[in-house]
Amino acid sequence: MNVKEKSIEELALLCGEIREEILRVVSKNGGHLSSTLGATELIVAMHKVFDVKKDPFIFDVSHQSYAHKLLTGRWDSFDTLRQFGGICGYTKPSESDYDYFVAGHSSTSISLGVGAAKAIALKGEQNERIPVVMIGDGSMTAGMVYEALNELGDRKYPMVIILNDNEMSIAKPIGAISRMLSSAMASPFYQRFKKTTESFVDNFGESARYIAKRMEESLKLVTPGILFEEMGIDYIGPVDGHNLGQLIDIFETAKKLQRPVIIHAQTLKGKGYEIAEGHEEKWHGVGPFDIKDGQSLKKSSTKSATQIYTEALLHLCEKDEKIVGATAAMPSGTGLNVLMEKYPTRFWDVAIAEQHAVTSMAALAKEGFKPFCTIYSTFLQRAYDQVIHDTCLMDLPVVFALDRAGIVGEDGETHQGVFDISFLRTLPNMTLFAPRDEKSFHQAMKFAATFEHPCALRYPRGSFIENDFQESQTFELGKSQLLKSTNSDILLIGYGNGVGRAYQTSLLLDEDVSILDLRFVKPLDRDMLLAMAKKHKKWFIFSDSSKMGGVGSAILEFLNEEKILDIVVKSFEYEDCFITHGSTTLIEESLGLLPKQLAKKIEAT
Amino acid sequence: MNVKEKSIEELALLCGEIREEILRVVSKNGGHLSSTLGATELIVAMHKVFDVKKDPFIFDVSHQSYAHKLLTGRWDSFDTLRQFGGICGYTKPSESDYDYFVAGHSSTSISLGVGAAKAIALKGEQNERIPVVMIGDGSMTAGMVYEALNELGDRKYPMVIILNDNEMSIAKPIGAISRMLSSAMASPFYQRFKKTTESFVDNFGESARYIAKRMEESLKLVTPGILFEEMGIDYIGPVDGHNLGQLIDIFETAKKLQRPVIIHAQTLKGKGYEIAEGHEEKWHGVGPFDIKDGQSLKKSSTKSATQIYTEALLHLCEKDEKIVGATAAMPSGTGLNVLMEKYPTRFWDVAIAEQHAVTSMAALAKEGFKPFCTIYSTFLQRAYDQVIHDTCLMDLPVVFALDRAGIVGEDGETHQGVFDISFLRTLPNMTLFAPRDEKSFHQAMKFAATFEHPCALRYPRGSFIENDFQESQTFELGKSQLLKSTNSDILLIGYGNGVGRAYQTSLLLDEDVSILDLRFVKPLDRDMLLAMAKKHKKWFIFSDSSKMGGVGSAILEFLNEEKILDIVVKSFEYEDCFITHGSTTLIEESLGLLPKQLAKKIEAT
Repeated sequence: MNVKEKSIEELALLCGEIREEILRVVSKNGGHLSSTLGATELIVAMHKVFDVKKDPFIFDVSHQSYAHKLLTGRWDSFDTLRQFGGICGYTKPSESDYDYFVAGHSSTSISLGVGAAKAIALKGEQNERIPVVMIGDGSMTAGMVYEALNELGDRKYPMVIILNDNEMSIAKPIGAISRMLSSAMASPFYQRFKKTTESFVDNFGESARYIAKRMEESLKLVTPGILFEEMGIDYIGPVDGHNLGQLIDIFETAKKLQRPVIIHAQTLKGKGYEIAEGHEEKWHGVGPFDIKDGQSLKKSSTKSATQIYTEALLHLCEKDEKIVGATAAMPSGTGLNVLMEKYPTRFWDVAIAEQHAVTSMAALAKEGFKPFCTIYSTFLQRAYDQVIHDTCLMDLPVVFALDRAGIVGEDGETHQGVFDISFLRTLPNMTLFAPRDEKSFHQAMKFAATFEHPCALRYPRGSFIENDFQESQTFELGKSQLLKSTNSDILLIGYGNGVGRAYQTSLLLDEDVSILDLRFVKPLDRDMLLAMAKKHKKWFIFSDSSKMGGVGSAILEFLNEEKILDIVVKSFEYEDCFITHGSTTLIEESLGLLPKQLAKKIEAT
Repeated sequence: MNVKEKSIEELALLCGEIREEILRVVSKNGGHLSSTLGATELIVAMHKVFDVKKDPFIFDVSHQSYAHKLLTGRWDSFDTLRQFGGICGYTKPSESDYDYFVAGHSSTSISLGVGAAKAIALKGEQNERIPVVMIGDGSMTAGMVYEALNELGDRKYPMVIILNDNEMSIAKPIGAISRMLSSAMASPFYQRFKKTTESFVDNFGESARYIAKRMEESLKLVTPGILFEEMGIDYIGPVDGHNLGQLIDIFETAKKLQRPVIIHAQTLKGKGYEIAEGHEEKWHGVGPFDIKDGQSLKKSSTKSATQIYTEALLHLCEKDEKIVGATAAMPSGTGLNVLMEKYPTRFWDVAIAEQHAVTSMAALAKEGFKPFCTIYSTFLQRAYDQVIHDTCLMDLPVVFALDRAGIVGEDGETHQGVFDISFLRTLPNMTLFAPRDEKSFHQAMKFAATFEHPCALRYPRGSFIENDFQESQTFELGKSQLLKSTNSDILLIGYGNGVGRAYQTSLLLDEDVSILDLRFVKPLDRDMLLAMAKKHKKWFIFSDSSKMGGVGSAILEFLNEEKILDIVVKSFEYEDCFITHGSTTLIEESLGLLPKQLAKKIEAT
């Protein structure tokens, strides 16, 4: 679509059409809604002023980039948003040349801009290309942004950074930076100062002018941008992020400056869809809903693992006041919002700041508290060294509660929680375990609450796969639970949600097989596994995790250590590739991981 | 030592004694010198004003904490600094109750302070205890610091942060923040402003006073601290970090404020040892030297792996102008300083900012460049998600050159480079390989330079273990090199520096065994391993890496996948515990990894 040739009036109409299309598709497919609606004018103005064919368009997190997708050849396929085989909910270069980078995790954009700017400088293309970065105020809390600004402000590469300030990341904005940004609401300080100075100087004549000038030299003004200006980056704003004409003018100006500029644009989240306008976290990411009244169309009948987590943690908190916790800007996603409401002094949202979340919780553990660091599996990757250096090395009793472990569905490859077992298992002092259902989750949490070393438990997005096994036993360090013992040669070993999958698979087998709930992948249940090795010679591993270094790998290491050479082990964990987006069932089918597919594989072994 | 009861004169004398002792021991044992000499008065003043028995004393990176160690019962044992079984070069709670936290990686201190402050608030101890954080200006560049300041400035927990500004992290200070801090040198702006305003108002009477007051309300001043003040944190400074009396007064004031305060103290690196005073990077961390003339006592005769890396990269750069690179504040440690000098537009020190280093290099790769991201193995842990989300997901040809892989010796457990294989192997699109000696290093680099996907090569601190094998072959993706083929049942498989260890071990065996240089741990050399499996039934793995998920684990996964059940595999990788400090030989002996010990283990198998 050629935005460049359209008039402002035509572009305003286009914004309306874009919003309508986004609303239509998201209400049907689910997706990110309010931030992308709010960013419509910003993105249209970007396309008007900059050249998407040459300039790197870099969207931070990129859930706000739907308008960009619509403007770059994906209007017709937009219907397939977030569906298996369809348009990805985030920017994705393999989907379109106009998507510069993958972005599903927050706060990478300015670093990418700096890298692109370095490349542009090396190629001598400064007069032809400029990186354009769009970043939300929520993303500004992650430290990586400052690492990048620190270099950018020093080297002064030309770059336009559009700060999309909708006063909200996913949840309520947290922290000093967000407060500083919103102070901009009051008035444009700079203009006020200029006027004050001028009238002042006019009234008091020459000597006053001299003094005022000297003051001006040694002073600067409190604009919300002073933080950026101090770092060497020009600041323009705040500007109305829905005023197309003004945005286009300012973008043109910024483009010509040939140095780094931050344009602070204020937008209304959900703009154009009245029900979603404003600050309600629930409209950040949504499932299918009825456009007319905003009511959700799908209601889940079964309890989600997150809900169980919340209930279990609430229960523990009542009895033990040493329990505290943190989320990194995912209060309702992780269910920690409930805890924050009930225990406002013991649970914190520390903003998008996983590193700080982990290390500050480690200090609380050192002080005798019991922190539950509640983070999606994929986001714990952002605090890996903090887990190693500040938690495991100190052997502190921090509990890492890893939500969204396994396939997360529509959010796709940036969000799949598949590597945690591999990257955590190798860490000394770390203990890893997982519940299989509601009852065992409560027991796992009870274990976690009194365990005196670092540990991590993982649980899936949505509900556990159903099983109707006997009651879960109390969790004991390194103890598995044998759920079914038969004389079959076959043993199914499940870990976490894998137990339900093993159960569902077992129903489809001709043979009556044994099933073990591994419970702990570190340490393993040596006695039980030795006993199993005597009885069963074909072991099948069920776990929603990467195969390399995963549960199967742990079992192989064990068998090797024990010099047991007569067991055939087959792991149904994920192969060595990134896993796409779509409904979990369709993804699992494509990976051959549905119970009916697994049953066939077992019977062929 | 009771610092609290000493007079300022006595404390000044004590500072001299501390410097003398540090100089004596570091000149003998090696260690961190110039930053710790520079911080002497700061630490003595900390001990005078705060109570180390109650207040959390938190040292960032903690290589500057030697004075603290001397003041807390370790004067007599300080002689053993950094030696096996002796005093650790960093703070370590298992060594002393007065060491609050382990800290060998940078920029964790303010997060720890926030966590401690939360604990203090929960316990109701605000009137009794306060966290005291000492952080260097270099550490201020890592994003984690801002994540923590963002929460601190919002919640305003009482905390004293001593910013030890010696205008230098390890290397030359980089970036906007460091420039901003050093602008403080000029003069204390605040005082100047106050004076200007006062005389101004005095001269111009009532109406001027009114206007000035209004201006003051909407203005703030450019002090170097405006960045902190904007974030909600009080700023005091800059102050002379060697003026004991002044420091004590200011610390007392800060302690009473009951809110977060940053004290910006300027110190001279190397203070008290004239040869080291000032900005020379070489005095940051040193080996044994002659106090009289500062000359190094040990000269290594063999070329270090880092030197070989530098030479190989220089060689490649001459022919390929697409090669670029980054270091995160370790220019001379990684040898990248040589490249930065010769190609100042193509190689960057991005400051202590590993996340930004990786992601900005990923963008350069996207633009067609070939980045060599040169980072110590242990520090890549700090950019794990950037490797996953910005590099592997994008399948970009970034080369991760992992220096200091394996045991690093005296720096100890925070710095051992042992987890990289485990945490990288599980990532899709990642290729992992390693050279065994100088010749193969050049060939590995040649391979890296043209490889079109993410890859990581690892090499040890110091020199490779010697071997006298046949010439190294060209590196080909996933191809190993069979160095010695015999009819023995025994096969030694080496990876990287493990090949030299395998060779040295083979010399001590009665039997003439086969030796394979694995070269690639991902992907593995399937054909070669299948051939080996037919011929040799006892495989021994040599690699300087964590066993869980490491090279042996990869081999086990392979054998299992290929359904080969008749091989006994024994891996001589590191067991599941953190590895202490000391000379590498003594550490390896304690782990049973010296060739003579390994030979015995093989013969007993």
